[in-house]
Amino acid sequence: MDLRGEPFRILGIDPGSRATGYGVIEKHGHSLTFVACGVIRATPKAALPLRLREIHDGVSEVIATHQPVKAAVEEVFVSVNAMSALKLGHARGVILLALVQQGLEVHEYSPRLIKQSVAGYGQAAKAQVQQMVRSLLSLSATPSQDAADALAVALCFASHWRPGGIQP
Amino acid sequence: MDLRGEPFRILGIDPGSRATGYGVIEKHGHSLTFVACGVIRATPKAALPLRLREIHDGVSEVIATHQPVKAAVEEVFVSVNAMSALKLGHARGVILLALVQQGLEVHEYSPRLIKQSVAGYGQAAKAQVQQMVRSLLSLSATPSQDAADALAVALCFASHWRPGGIQP
Repeated sequence: MDLRGEPFRILGIDPGSRATGYGVIEKHGHSLTFVACGVIRATPKAALPLRLREIHDGVSEVIATHQPVKAAVEEVFVSVNAMSALKLGHARGVILLALVQQGLEVHEYSPRLIKQSVAGYGQAAKAQVQQMVRSLLSLSATPSQDAADALAVALCFASHWRPGGIQP
Repeated sequence: MDLRGEPFRILGIDPGSRATGYGVIEKHGHSLTFVACGVIRATPKAALPLRLREIHDGVSEVIATHQPVKAAVEEVFVSVNAMSALKLGHARGVILLALVQQGLEVHEYSPRLIKQSVAGYGQAAKAQVQQMVRSLLSLSATPSQDAADALAVALCFASHWRPGGIQP
């Protein structure tokens, strides 16, 4: 008898106005397996509505391909300036929409908690996060920064999730 | 022979994180007719992804019902703080997505140009905009502030649009 319960997939997202990282892992009891990761980029010179459609469609495609059932998204660090926050908000809005349209349960985590979960330290540098993600998922290569950040969000979800429990 | 060309409908949008105003007008040569206006509100206590879906679906429904072919959206006044800009960005992102998904041509105008177009003065007060919108479209009642702002964006588009021409 397998006491680990059913395996399920988690999609982690690191939203950005230029590049959105994504990472998919599978959780089966305490074991975590890498499924996929990558970066969704919108055409830089396209008009804003078209770029937003590319981001929305890119996220929808990742979900259709890898079939995650839960999603974790990085919260925004609010000390950015208003113009950057607005741009990021546009991208984040269509990403959250794609997640809910595809029926995923969505959770948000602060950058600090994400870093703490994977590197044991809330102020960890980007490169440390990349190395820890590589090590925790036994990857044969180091993922790009955006993809590693997305995998880190998924790992953060995995370490805080309890069956039937409430997210902290 | 009618020299006014084909009539077409314009959707004006005043995006907001709590309330999004919309207004539809029909342009036939120089004549402008009111079609519809209203406010899309998301359920205040729902989770952010669900609220974004309500806004996205609300805009899509307005387009399906009134069949506009061009859309005009108010640009964001960037002096707002970063947190407000982020919230507004989320809503604006899913609105722009709905417009492009339904095949509308999207134009953006500054609040200043919109006020100037309808009230002749870029610093016009909200109440003046409401009165001018009512008068320009011969409405029997004054629309709510959000709906009037959306109709003003549509009127701004109508006064700057030239057949085959470039938007200023």
